[in-house]
Amino acid sequence: MESINNSPYEQGLDQSPANYIPLSPLTFIERSASVWPDQESIVYGTRRYTWSETFKRCRRLASALSNLGIGKNNTVAVILANTPEMVECCFAVPATGAVLNTINIRLDANTIGFILNHGEADCIITDTEFAEPVSIALTQLDRTVPVINVDDTQYHPDGQFIGDLEYEKFLQGGDPEFHWNQVDDEWNAITLNYTSGTTGNPKGVVYHHRGAYLNALSNIVSWSMAKNPRFLWTVPMFHCNGWCFPWTLAAIGGTNICLRKVTAKTIFAAIADEKITHFGGAPIVLNLLINANKDEQRSFEHPVEVMTAAAPPPAATLEAMQHAGFNVTHVYGLTETYGPATLCSWRDEWGQLPIAEQSEKKSRQGVRYHSLEKLAVLDPETMAPVPADGETMGEVMFRGNIVMKGYLKNPEATDAAFAGGWFHSGDLGVMDPDGYIKLKDRSKDIIISGGENISSIEVENVLHSHPCVLVAAVVAKEDAKWGETPCAFVELKPDMKITEQEIILYCREHLAHFKCPHQVIFQELPKTSTGKIQKFKLRDSINQH
Amino acid sequence: MESINNSPYEQGLDQSPANYIPLSPLTFIERSASVWPDQESIVYGTRRYTWSETFKRCRRLASALSNLGIGKNNTVAVILANTPEMVECCFAVPATGAVLNTINIRLDANTIGFILNHGEADCIITDTEFAEPVSIALTQLDRTVPVINVDDTQYHPDGQFIGDLEYEKFLQGGDPEFHWNQVDDEWNAITLNYTSGTTGNPKGVVYHHRGAYLNALSNIVSWSMAKNPRFLWTVPMFHCNGWCFPWTLAAIGGTNICLRKVTAKTIFAAIADEKITHFGGAPIVLNLLINANKDEQRSFEHPVEVMTAAAPPPAATLEAMQHAGFNVTHVYGLTETYGPATLCSWRDEWGQLPIAEQSEKKSRQGVRYHSLEKLAVLDPETMAPVPADGETMGEVMFRGNIVMKGYLKNPEATDAAFAGGWFHSGDLGVMDPDGYIKLKDRSKDIIISGGENISSIEVENVLHSHPCVLVAAVVAKEDAKWGETPCAFVELKPDMKITEQEIILYCREHLAHFKCPHQVIFQELPKTSTGKIQKFKLRDSINQH
Repeated sequence: MESINNSPYEQGLDQSPANYIPLSPLTFIERSASVWPDQESIVYGTRRYTWSETFKRCRRLASALSNLGIGKNNTVAVILANTPEMVECCFAVPATGAVLNTINIRLDANTIGFILNHGEADCIITDTEFAEPVSIALTQLDRTVPVINVDDTQYHPDGQFIGDLEYEKFLQGGDPEFHWNQVDDEWNAITLNYTSGTTGNPKGVVYHHRGAYLNALSNIVSWSMAKNPRFLWTVPMFHCNGWCFPWTLAAIGGTNICLRKVTAKTIFAAIADEKITHFGGAPIVLNLLINANKDEQRSFEHPVEVMTAAAPPPAATLEAMQHAGFNVTHVYGLTETYGPATLCSWRDEWGQLPIAEQSEKKSRQGVRYHSLEKLAVLDPETMAPVPADGETMGEVMFRGNIVMKGYLKNPEATDAAFAGGWFHSGDLGVMDPDGYIKLKDRSKDIIISGGENISSIEVENVLHSHPCVLVAAVVAKEDAKWGETPCAFVELKPDMKITEQEIILYCREHLAHFKCPHQVIFQELPKTSTGKIQKFKLRDSINQH
Repeated sequence: MESINNSPYEQGLDQSPANYIPLSPLTFIERSASVWPDQESIVYGTRRYTWSETFKRCRRLASALSNLGIGKNNTVAVILANTPEMVECCFAVPATGAVLNTINIRLDANTIGFILNHGEADCIITDTEFAEPVSIALTQLDRTVPVINVDDTQYHPDGQFIGDLEYEKFLQGGDPEFHWNQVDDEWNAITLNYTSGTTGNPKGVVYHHRGAYLNALSNIVSWSMAKNPRFLWTVPMFHCNGWCFPWTLAAIGGTNICLRKVTAKTIFAAIADEKITHFGGAPIVLNLLINANKDEQRSFEHPVEVMTAAAPPPAATLEAMQHAGFNVTHVYGLTETYGPATLCSWRDEWGQLPIAEQSEKKSRQGVRYHSLEKLAVLDPETMAPVPADGETMGEVMFRGNIVMKGYLKNPEATDAAFAGGWFHSGDLGVMDPDGYIKLKDRSKDIIISGGENISSIEVENVLHSHPCVLVAAVVAKEDAKWGETPCAFVELKPDMKITEQEIILYCREHLAHFKCPHQVIFQELPKTSTGKIQKFKLRDSINQH
């Protein structure tokens, strides 16, 4: 049959401005401003904006930043709470061609300084609440950069300025009719997110416009989101750009309901008063809700969809959320995958199972997002898939358009992460016979005792099912005889009392003996800002190096 | 600030197999087969398949076609009704690297022959119902091509074969575990659709994998489709690949309910018995439903979403559909834009308007689809946007990733269509102050009388609001005095009687006098298979050339 090169399908059918436009989530906000100009875009306390207003404010900000000299491949670092300014930066900064570097607001001054230096920040936008660490971090820079201060008098009246630029005045100096250029390449960097770093120096994960566009749409398709949702910001927007939801909401004319402080009381109040339809949060946020006092709770009758991620949710937490009237969808991903990249897609027939089994199903990390083309559990030595038997452990690996461009200025780490043409998550898991994956551990968190692998997550799930336990973590303790043994750290619910021995006995009822903790330590657990438990700190506290 | 070329964002962050995969809707079917293996994929009479089965059948077909020598850039022409085989071809043919050329089943033998020759078909899959014109068309080819016969004994028992290949046997010869290759470039051709051609020779519109992927997702996002919809096939799948819905349904585990014959009775039966949640159709299909006899109608209580396109829906039709319990969304596009490319996105506040005004709003073509980056009404001479005043006419133009690659072997037509970096639709319209477009006419359908432009659609809308009128078309009649005058062709509802003079008087009550028809001819209107009225035939019947 005919030769490929002479094929008529290869001739006179090239890309042109009419039929090829680089994918970018910036096209979403222009659309919502035109389709839903009067629909609420952002609600924050007494401040309320429409999509038409937000689009204008974004154009002003992009214009003002351009006037400052910000343009293609510059870095704009922001240290902001979940306020309207943060939403605006997700559009206005990339609209100038620059890269948005959202920095974790709970970091210490040294780490902020490291990121500003490594990311080569050309401009900083910071909330006055974080003026102290940021001003110290600035002393570590060998150059002067403009600092724009967000002065949130509603919720943080006594903020200190760094320099004299104020966000609202700065924005008012920009042109509300500013016309930003179409992105010239969908592979261009859009944001820079430093890994939250449970170990070592943070690495700078670079996202591109194509991936941000595709994952923003995938959130809608995978989660069956209808237009005009009301989304509560419990996930920090500095974390994986809020799982791409600022762009998702712009695509479907949703409303961002912003909160500076996430507590059970503010969440319940928003659900009841602002008719929240969707929110996301780590299991720790879900625990906040199900353990809330009566005076923090509010009743609600409309359906509320909750996306949970960042740590495997204990089955007990999922069960309690279902009882409380929330419909929880479990997703999983890493900073390197634009946030959620898999979800535990629900099958109708599972609705017939006992609720505990439903939660067991739901606690799995599941199947690939639409925008992730391949999800596999591979033997990292041979790169062969493990059998789909729910038993054989391998490394969870990803391939697709929502895998990062790579780590900034770190080709060795990028190459290692992409070895063999797959992104290596560092998470260990199994493939169930139904094609759903289930995490067993971070590769560094696995406990090897007497030659047997012990999944810390499996032990933690048993601990979480105990009515006295609020949150638990299990790590390896060095042991002369066994090599390692499991050691449990447990944070109890208020007013609960239980002994170490009772906990160990409870575990023996539910686990093989060799998996049970040899020691139980009661204390508050150290956590990252996104609710991940910092196991390295726990390990350091019980092991000698 | 720093130079772009030395930017760290441009170094060591290249595409790799881990982070770049060409977009293709073929990835959707593999996902649904894995996520929803037991969910119904296709229902056709007594035949019922699951996504796991459909994926296997597609792999068998792709394998069998590959064994036949079909591969990259070959053309597989299909002349099929809306049966399961048609759905399978939408995946299996591109999975081999070949291009799927779906041919209108109502074409005459000569036109089919033209298309087979022009598209250089390497293989033909045809339903035995269409054996007669296809076998005549084959005599026009200067080569022999394999013909695979779909022998639908359930609905078309006496079909004649062309040659001796039968679809089911052919498919059984393929490997159900066949592994198809990932598409190597998202710009590769995926399908070839000939324009239905209200004038002149059909042109071959080439789609690519990227556009098919994006419009399949856009259908979901723009129409707020949740997972697992039940979609009734009233739109022919040979038309713009069924507006990309075969791929949409694969993305969200929907069910294709197939019909060989679309009648009011079969549609109502499917809605009631198969619990249809979504279907699409030209206004002519909507008219079928609202004018159905009592014994054709069935009651239903679940919400049914209807997407209408292919001709501007008369406000009266929209109003009657709403009364009948259907929620109609109006979309607009062309073969050149993968089907729907705009929609009349509904604003909540319009729900407060009187129902006639709601229908008026809804009869507009609206705003761009997510996957269409730019929609404009431009002066085709200056390429400047017309004022958004709802009055000034211009040509509707498109720019984006769901504009075709171009016309096959017709660079002149492609260049003309893409002149100035926009796809020229040939449709005339206005931009309303709220940013929604409204079609006024095809450029060749506009009537110029005494120097005044008359929109045939405007006159038709008035005719459609008359209770006796089933369907109407208005065309230009040559006139010695006025240049042209409007002439109306009217098809009455059963048992209705009305005179020419009464129709003209009715128009005068609702239109400026110069816009009213000078003549009214009562007859059945000639239509294309997709419900478009063939105005050129009407014009020819009253004018001398």
